Parts: sequence; C-alpha cells; structure tokens
Amino acid sequence: MTAILGCGFDPGVTSVFTAYAAKHHFDEIQYLDIVDCNAGDHGKPFATNFNPEINIREVTQRGKYWENGQWVETEPHEIHKPLTYPEIGPKESYLIYHEELESLVKNFPTIKRARFWMTFGEEYLTHLRVIQNIGMARIDEVEFNGQKIVPIQFLKAVLPNPGDLGENYKGWTSIGCRIRGIKDGKEKTYYIYNNCSHEAAYQETGTQGVSYTTGVPAMIGAMMFLQGKWKKPGVFNVEEFDPDPFMEQLNKQGLPWHELVNVDLEL
Amino acid sequence: MTAILGCGFDPGVTSVFTAYAAKHHFDEIQYLDIVDCNAGDHGKPFATNFNPEINIREVTQRGKYWENGQWVETEPHEIHKPLTYPEIGPKESYLIYHEELESLVKNFPTIKRARFWMTFGEEYLTHLRVIQNIGMARIDEVEFNGQKIVPIQFLKAVLPNPGDLGENYKGWTSIGCRIRGIKDGKEKTYYIYNNCSHEAAYQETGTQGVSYTTGVPAMIGAMMFLQGKWKKPGVFNVEEFDPDPFMEQLNKQGLPWHELVNVDLEL
Repeated sequence: MTAILGCGFDPGVTSVFTAYAAKHHFDEIQYLDIVDCNAGDHGKPFATNFNPEINIREVTQRGKYWENGQWVETEPHEIHKPLTYPEIGPKESYLIYHEELESLVKNFPTIKRARFWMTFGEEYLTHLRVIQNIGMARIDEVEFNGQKIVPIQFLKAVLPNPGDLGENYKGWTSIGCRIRGIKDGKEKTYYIYNNCSHEAAYQETGTQGVSYTTGVPAMIGAMMFLQGKWKKPGVFNVEEFDPDPFMEQLNKQGLPWHELVNVDLEL
Repeated sequence: MTAILGCGFDPGVTSVFTAYAAKHHFDEIQYLDIVDCNAGDHGKPFATNFNPEINIREVTQRGKYWENGQWVETEPHEIHKPLTYPEIGPKESYLIYHEELESLVKNFPTIKRARFWMTFGEEYLTHLRVIQNIGMARIDEVEFNGQKIVPIQFLKAVLPNPGDLGENYKGWTSIGCRIRGIKDGKEKTYYIYNNCSHEAAYQETGTQGVSYTTGVPAMIGAMMFLQGKWKKPGVFNVEEFDPDPFMEQLNKQGLPWHELVNVDLEL
C-alpha cells in the first residue's frame, strides 16, 4: 500500500517544485522560501479562500521557520516584507508556519533555512484580528442554549462558502519556490512558480483559483499512483517521489509553471 | 395602573433633563441634542457596555433625527463631529437613532430639531464593521448542526459579559442634554449633564458605570411611583411626569447633575 501525503498546491506542488529543483538545478539547496500570493479580489468584505477553520487557525498561530538545524518561532505576523510576484507586483508577505517545511528540511538536509511566506491585505488582517478579539476564533467549546458549540466552527457556518466565491473572483494566485544554493560549485538562484487566474479557473470548473490549484494537483497525484509512477510501500511526502512526471502533468492539466534563473529572490 | 416607560439613563434621565429644562429654563425648547459619551477604558480589546445584541443593533442601524416636523434618515455613522465633554475633552461623536427622540418631539412640540449623539472610538467601530462583515451581527436564524441559531445571540455568548467589565474599568461616562431655545423672548443655551466614574460605580456596587447609570434611575422611577409622585392611570414616558422630585433624587442617589447656561453647545 502507498500513502501520498499533502498533494494540493501547498503543501503539494511546492514540495514537487523543490524536488524538481534539487534534481535538475542544484547540487545543494541551501535556502528555500515558499511564496504564496493570492492577489485575487472576490468582491466580498471578508471571506476565506478555503475552509475558514483551517485558514484562520493557520494564519493566526505563531510563525515558525527552519534555520541552522533548528526551528525558530516568531510572534504571529512578526516578520513581513513586500515581495514582488510575477504579473502581480509587490505584495506585503508574512512569514507563517506551513506544514510542508517539516518534511522538506528532513528530505533535503542541506537546507540551511526554510521559510514560508503568504500575502495578506490590511483588511484581511484587520478582520482576523477582530475575529480573535471577539472570541470567534476560539477552538474550545462554549455553552449556548444547552448545546456545546465551538465558535470557529459556527463562524464557518456564517462566512461565505469558499467554493462559492468563484463567480466574481478576479485576479491571480502566484505560488512558487525561491531557492538559493550551489550548482557546479557556484551559487545559483532559482524561482519556480505557477500563476493561476481565478476567472479562468471559474470558467473551466465553476470554482475559484484556490480550489482549482488545490484540486488539480490532488488529481495528478492520484494519476501518478494509478499509472504506477508514484508507487512504493509506505507513507510518503510528495517530494520523495520522482517529480518529473508530475511536473509534466502540471503543464498539461492547467497549472503551467515557469522558471527564472539567477534572478534577485528578494530574500 | 401606571406604566412608566424607559427609565434608565438614556432613555430615562435624558428625558427628565429635558422636562426639567422645559419647566425651569425655557419658554420654548427649539433644538435638543442628547449627548452620550463613554470615555471609559475597560482594558479589553472589544466588549459592549450593555447587552451586546441591543448595543450592536442600535449602533449599526441607520441614523435618524427629527427636523422641521419630520424624520431625516442618514447612513449609519454618516454624521459625526468631535464634541467636548466636561472633565473629558473632545471625543468623536456620531449621530445615531435613539428611541427617546420619538416621544420627546411629541411631548415638546416646539422642538425644531432633536438629535442623539454617541461617542465611539475607532477601534470600537472597526470591530463593529467586522462583526457585520463576517455575518455575526445577523438577527436571522442560521442552520448549524441541525439547530437554528441567531448569530448575534451566539456572539453575545462569547463576548465579555458587560456586567463583568467593572473591575478594571477606568474613566468617566458623561451624558446630558444640550438645548437651545427661547426664554423671556431671548435665545438661551443650556447644557445639563451627569458625569459618572466607572471606578466609583464599581467601588460602590461591584459593577461599572454604564450599569450604574442605568440601574439607579430605574430605582428612582420605582421610588417616584411608590411615593405616589409619579402615579396616574395610563402608559407614560418619563418626561410626562413632574421632573423635580426625580431630579432631587438623582443628586442624592449618586448621579449628581450639573448645569451650564449660555455656553457654546458646539451644535
């Protein structure tokens, strides 16, 4: 039996990108920055792009990154800077903890520093801050009319359904890996990314870009398994398989990727 | 049987203040502005000073005031300006609809314009805006785990209990009436107000100033009825009774009032 872990975009494609970079572009990956930008506009005052419970818990927790063999923790949103995304421009990006860092630093032990950055708008952060302040991000049970209710789960019931945001969603997502390391004894930088249009995603599937970039890689992962290309007994992260057939399918299945070599990574 | 309506501070004392002004200071009240400032700090990121359901509904609804014989509606918080409160200083004050205006313009038909102003801090308004944006101010039922729940009622269950805010509550409330009208053929201005200290209220009763200013007038109203001073068959607003014995008790029961004559009302 084969189990394939975390096969959405991030985690998922970002780890395949890293494996692809390690296989074809580097002798030694030293610095890895995964950058996740959603420059879309759904026209709603506030909505999360995927499961609100996961999203809010993910972005309100303490930041964490890997450096020199150990994890470094930060206050939530303590570290941030504007990063420039292809065809989008500069967007304030926040260092957050994201789970694929855990396995990537194990599977690529030459990595000296691994970080994850995500863009948030001011309004989005204001909404998150208030949601926490008023107690609606709480994950413990609250007594209400004789029933035990977890506030963040109730909040999920009143927020817009992420899958329904598609119709008027404009703009792009841009997710990729910015990598610095050694190739043939020389320092090299490498930026591999996919840009996905919310509108094109909606036209093709009736759902928005974040759903699209999550669902298509899961389908490709299943394809890899069914074709016997990703098949070995055990539980694996996606970077432990051959990235090439997966990368080929990304280009065919609507998530084409682009490479920039020896550019300024800003990081 | 006698029914006495709205006998807290506002509605309640503010209407008694108006009746007192009409009885002793004016031949004709022309302009009435009720001003309600809470300059207290409870040290919490967000909490309402009384029942959150009422508070949020009250301050997020459209504004409304009386002018030249008719009601004028405004967008929520459309009209605002800094007003200077005694011993507090200037605070941004927002024109909102408040129910005592309804009966005051009927019982004092010389009033050309009647408005109600309440102070809000920027952070408070940000929290209110987000609460509305995320759907937690909704007063309709939402389906959750097979139960019908009204979001604003659930929010009330997670917000701090207003009655529990007292312990570290600093600062003052200042509520009063700013009145312009005619006395002996000449224009006159009159400002009558009470300032209440959150700390003093807590020391005396174990609860904060907003609870204190609401509860003490209700007690005095009951006293007026029991002493036979406010007793006539029917349903009445407080301004329809003799204000003098009530005003005397305010001074004795911890809510002393102050008068300023022919000052700049700022309005």
